[in-house]
Order: sequence, then structure tokens, then C-alpha cells
Amino acid sequence: MRIKVQKFGGTSVADLQCMQQVLNKVRAALDDGYKVLVVLSAMAGQTDYLLSLANRWSSTPDPAELDSMVTTGEQVSVALFSMLLQDQGIKARSLLGFQIPMRTDSNFGRARILDIDSPRLQAMLEQYDVLAIAGFQGCDCEDRLTTLGRGGSDTSAVAMAAATNAEVCEIYTDVDGVYTTDPNVCSQARKLDKIAYDEMLEMASMGAKVLQIRSVEFAKKFNVPVHVRSTFTDVPGTLLVQEDNSMESALVSGIAYDKDQALITLANVYDEPGISATIFEPLAIAGVVVDMIVQNPSREGRTDMTFTVPKGDLEQTLQIIDNIKDQIGAKAVFHNPKVSKVSVIGMGMRNHSGIASIAFKALRMENINIMLISTSEIKISCLVDEKYTELTVRTLHEAFGLDQKPQPACEEPGQSQ
Amino acid sequence: MRIKVQKFGGTSVADLQCMQQVLNKVRAALDDGYKVLVVLSAMAGQTDYLLSLANRWSSTPDPAELDSMVTTGEQVSVALFSMLLQDQGIKARSLLGFQIPMRTDSNFGRARILDIDSPRLQAMLEQYDVLAIAGFQGCDCEDRLTTLGRGGSDTSAVAMAAATNAEVCEIYTDVDGVYTTDPNVCSQARKLDKIAYDEMLEMASMGAKVLQIRSVEFAKKFNVPVHVRSTFTDVPGTLLVQEDNSMESALVSGIAYDKDQALITLANVYDEPGISATIFEPLAIAGVVVDMIVQNPSREGRTDMTFTVPKGDLEQTLQIIDNIKDQIGAKAVFHNPKVSKVSVIGMGMRNHSGIASIAFKALRMENINIMLISTSEIKISCLVDEKYTELTVRTLHEAFGLDQKPQPACEEPGQSQ
Repeated sequence: MRIKVQKFGGTSVADLQCMQQVLNKVRAALDDGYKVLVVLSAMAGQTDYLLSLANRWSSTPDPAELDSMVTTGEQVSVALFSMLLQDQGIKARSLLGFQIPMRTDSNFGRARILDIDSPRLQAMLEQYDVLAIAGFQGCDCEDRLTTLGRGGSDTSAVAMAAATNAEVCEIYTDVDGVYTTDPNVCSQARKLDKIAYDEMLEMASMGAKVLQIRSVEFAKKFNVPVHVRSTFTDVPGTLLVQEDNSMESALVSGIAYDKDQALITLANVYDEPGISATIFEPLAIAGVVVDMIVQNPSREGRTDMTFTVPKGDLEQTLQIIDNIKDQIGAKAVFHNPKVSKVSVIGMGMRNHSGIASIAFKALRMENINIMLISTSEIKISCLVDEKYTELTVRTLHEAFGLDQKPQPACEEPGQSQ
Repeated sequence: MRIKVQKFGGTSVADLQCMQQVLNKVRAALDDGYKVLVVLSAMAGQTDYLLSLANRWSSTPDPAELDSMVTTGEQVSVALFSMLLQDQGIKARSLLGFQIPMRTDSNFGRARILDIDSPRLQAMLEQYDVLAIAGFQGCDCEDRLTTLGRGGSDTSAVAMAAATNAEVCEIYTDVDGVYTTDPNVCSQARKLDKIAYDEMLEMASMGAKVLQIRSVEFAKKFNVPVHVRSTFTDVPGTLLVQEDNSMESALVSGIAYDKDQALITLANVYDEPGISATIFEPLAIAGVVVDMIVQNPSREGRTDMTFTVPKGDLEQTLQIIDNIKDQIGAKAVFHNPKVSKVSVIGMGMRNHSGIASIAFKALRMENINIMLISTSEIKISCLVDEKYTELTVRTLHEAFGLDQKPQPACEEPGQSQ
């Protein structure tokens, strides 16, 4: 049995006309001999409407009740779509999270998938040609309804593909794939044919909002081929896969940026064991996600500690720092909300030196000052003045020749045999 | 554990202000030491909206998908109401049909209850003070969502009361009880303190739309005391109970009427075995509900067959009759859509003669012609010209002194010992 998962977002199911497009995609997959699991979101705006209703009724809506309520959005979508399929003579039915069942933990509003009843799904695929599956929702071990968090339908889709051993999980969206960078910032941005899961994780965490990050983690874990493509064309989009040979030729796959950064520097704090914990523990407890952290080499038992937080958390962070200022001996606290993080991302970095120096040289040529640098195996991030964000992105995009499709790598002698 | 069920309809949960009234009723029951099962309908208009959406999308919406979709109305109500309760510091949660679970058969759109997990409900009542239960919905043995038909929340409520052995099932509505007849027709109509299940069944089937008929059947079967009362006052309403001594004093409890009747007479059909089957079988197959049937005594091997059908089915009925006209030898077919059925209802009828003659005499005094008569143990129905409906109702109401509360019956000697 050949199985395909197709996921459509809220704008794709907004009305009857849009649903026709979805119907065409499903029909094409059926014609190709697939059984199809169609994962749908709520109609555009419906989830927000329900959330606002709850917030009008209650000052602190219970997360469990909130989940039970917002899942109705997808429940309506899949029922309507099933009717549409049946009208076309297609053997189809809807399937809600609890009916699969897709078990999650009880973290209402951001539940994690624990288990999916694969045999039951398989049995249903014997009986039906299309299963219209409500995205975003599951149920905990006590049958309470849960949701997977914003964008959770992506994760639902990937999980369904993993559970049914589907050939591919197609994520239909209003963009036609993953780009080397934001086309709104850099007109030279090029659509990628393929991207490795790890690269996509870095891109997604940097605000490339094509996919929910957790869905990429899930796809990586279960090695699910994910095809990100447009609802409105038939052009192939971008395939998310494990790193393979054909990718290694590209040193760098993309440039991502994140304007939601604020910089804080604690000057001349005591450089002693446990100082980091003293600073970052109260922030963690307050739920502030600290991103880049840099500690300068010690001078006379003192050091500068610099880090970034989301702009919206800056005020709260400064208050917390104020409470521990004396304890850590900070002589001064500087902050700057007008900064931006730009990252060069690529699996090829792991095996090639000199990537960083290409980046730094290019930025120097444009006189762009780098405030902070942090690196990982497959990423180099630079903090720059916010006003240089776009220039930085374009400069790096050009420096790594991302507008050009990379040439296939020469096969290594050992591999051709 | 003292348990009370309270059921509120769509107008009671229409908005936050209405819900406040519901909250007051629940709070009062809690103050009286009860654990409360609150059965809610969808917000007024929501079910109709969802049905119209389905009908826009599909020419013949699948009943199973329709049920899955319309149950979302109650799902939203109970989540919102639970939030409201929790904001008041009340230990509460929502409970959907499948979560109870309330098992039904798979007759989507008009499912019948098979089983309710009473121990699970009892266990939850240990944990919570209020359970907000989604009315109208259940799930079949394959976990598909079902609905109990229009007004099904009444039946949900009575079923919950039976399953938890509740002291009373309060049905809150926009009228304050069950009346001796329609107050819009007869200003002398009086609210009944009590009514027997069987009487209520007759009243309900005649268009007294206070309760879903099936909820009354259910209440009778499980002997659930049902209290029909107003959401907007604290005045006691009408109690539905098994027939008891205090009722026997009243010969007649109420007058019901039904304008949705059309009369058909087949003149001079063959009076031979099987003739009724030949006439009524094709009507049953076509789903036409035949109500009153009268066959005149035979003359020379011929008879007149007269019956009533709902007005909306008259055309179809006449077509079916036309097909079998020759077979049954009907010399003529007469029909009259301008008729009305008025019924005198009362448990006391079983033990007292002369009720019919009081009715007939009263109608003769007003020169109202009776076209058809049919009787049951506790009901006498008369078909009259539609234009005399209201006059007939008022005449009978007065003839049986229904504006007056009946005097308690003298206890029979054998019972006082």
C-alpha cells in the first residue's frame, strides 16, 4: 500500500473555493495510486476567534478547557472536507485526534505526542481511500483533548507519515518552498530543492516560519521525507531529508535572520564559579529564553557577560538583573534593543574551514560591525545593528553565491566503488 | 452523595449574561449540598449555523460527518461554562459524550443511548463538584460521534440523572412549566404542579414542545423525577412523575392540539382481508406517518377508509393512493388539509366513564362538528375543522374545569389502612 500524507493550513481550507484546490491535490495523489491521509487545520481565523471568545469569558481560561474548545475548529474542517470527498464518490471519512487515537502528554496547549495507533490507521486505510485527519489535536491518557501548540498541524502531519510509513509528507502552504533567505529582503533568494533536517531546524528557529520547529525535529527523528510546497501551483517545492551526498557540495544553504533580539551587557561582574548560574537561573525561572551568550576572558577576576533575549522580555530581564546586580558585582548594565541576529547555515560547514572568515570579510567590506558572534557545528550567527539587517543578509547571500545552484560535488574515490 | 442534574437550552447559554443565570442556578444547588451535573446545549443558533454550512458544502451531507461537526456546538458551550465556574473557584470540568462515554447505536442524527459509564461518572463526581456535560451527543462503539436528534439534550439530561441516581433532573427552559393547554390559545390555561409521564408523552406528541418525547420515555422507564421550570425565575415548575394518588382526583389533565393534520377518505374500497395492509404498507415504506385511522362498518362488501397524515405528506400520499386506487377498488378519494386534532388527556380516564360524552356534549353546544374520533386509554382525540381549533380547545378546557386546581381525591377506604 503506497501512502501519502498531505497537510493543508488554514488559508487552504478557508472556504469552498480553496477547498477545491485541496480536493485537486488529493485527487492527483489518488490517481497516482496512493492512499491519502489529509491533515487539515481549522479554517483561517477560527482558532483565533475561539481563543478570543475564551478570553472574553474568563480572565485565566483553564488550558484543558481551552484545548477542548479550540479543537472544534479542526473538527469542523475535516467533517466538511469528508463530505466534499464523498460527494465526489471518494471513499473517505474524518478522523479526530481521540479517534486515531493520537496519545499525547497532558501539557495542554503544547502537548507532545506519545503514541499513535498505527495498526488502527492501517486498518482504516484498507477501508477508506482518504482519511481526513484533524491536525493540531490529540488526547491524553484520560481522554482529555489536547493541542500541540501553534503550527501543530505540521507536527500532526509528520507524525501521521511516520506512523503509516508514508512515502512522503507534503506540507502545502502559501509559499512554494524553502528559500536560501527571505525573498522580501533579498531579491536574489533562490528556492532550495533539498535541505537537510538540521539546516531546516536552524532556519525555522530563526523565524523562517514555513514549518513548526517540532515537526522538523519529528521528521528528523523518524526520517520522514517532508516536501514543502505551494497549494496554488504544481511546481515541486523543497524536500527535507537526511543529509546526503548531493548536498555536500553546498557549503552554505541559507541565510536566516531574527530581528527579535535585545542585547544586554553586564560589565565587570565577578568571574567566579557559579556566576553564570546566578545570572541565568532567575531568568529561566521567569521563562525568559536567553539566546546568544558570550563571556569575555577574565581581567583581574572580573569579566563582561553579554547575552541576548527576545525584545518583549527586555524589561523583565532588566528588572531581574537589577535584583541580582550587587550579588554579581556588576559595575554597569548596558542594553540595546536595536539589534538583529543574522546566521549563515550549512551542513557543509562541518567539513570545511574558512566559512567564518568569508563571512567576516564580506561584512568588513560593507563596514558592518559585528557585536557578538556565536557558532555551532552548522551555523555562524552574528549580532549586528538592526538597521543593517537587510544589508547583512544580502551581503552574506552574495558572499556565498547562494543565488547560484551549487554544482554537484565530485564523488570521492572511495564512494564510487 | 446528593446529585442533581440541571439542563439548560440554547437560549440559556446564548451569551455571557445568560450564562450568569445558569451560574446562579448551579451555585444554588451547590449551596444546597448537591453535586451538580449541568447538561448544556449549543449556543442558540449555532447548530443551525453548522447545519447550513454543511448544506452549502454538500448536496447530501454524510450523517456521520454531520454529527461529528454539529457536536462542536456543545463542545464549545461546556468548555466556556467550565471556565466560568473555575473563575468562581468551583471545582469543575467539561465532559464530552465520548469522554463519559455515553455509548449509542450508530443511527447518526437520531442515535439511541445504549449505555452510560455510571462508575466513571460517580468517580468524577468524587473529584469535581460540577460536571459540565455536552448534551445531544454520544459516541458509537467505534468511537464515532453521534447525536440524539433535535431536543436531544433533554434526553441526555434524563439519562445522566438515571445513570447517577440523581434526586431530580431539572429542565430549565423559557416557559415556567407544563400547562393544561397552550396559554396562547386559552387564557384560562393553568400551570400543572405535577403531570404523569404518560400524560406528558401524549402532550408532547401533540406539539407541546416543552420536552423531547424520548426524554419523557426515558424518564418513565427509569423513573427519573423531571422538574420542568424557568431559567428566569425561582418559581417551581411542573414535576413529571409516576402516576400517584394525589393525581387521581383529576380526570383530565390537559388539552392538546395539532394543526399539522390532513384528512383522506377512500370511498367504497373492497372490504376484504389485507385491504389495510395494501393501503398502509406503501405509505409506511415512503415514511409517511399515518395518525388517526377509522374504518366504517362494511356495506355490501365495501367500506370507507379514513385516515390522517401530516399536511406536508399529503401530496405524496395522494400519489401513492393513486397508484393503488384500482387495486383497492376505491370509487373516490376525498382529501381535506384544513383539519386539526384536539385531544383530551388524562390518566383518570382509565377509571372513569363518561369523559367522552362530556367532551362530545360540550362540542355539540358550540356546534362544532367532529369529523373523526380516536381514543386510547388516557386520551380522546377529535378531528375538527381547522378554523375551530382554538374554540374547541377553549370549550374542552372549560368543560373539564381545567382552570381550577382539582380537589384532592377522598382516599379510598382500602388505601387509608
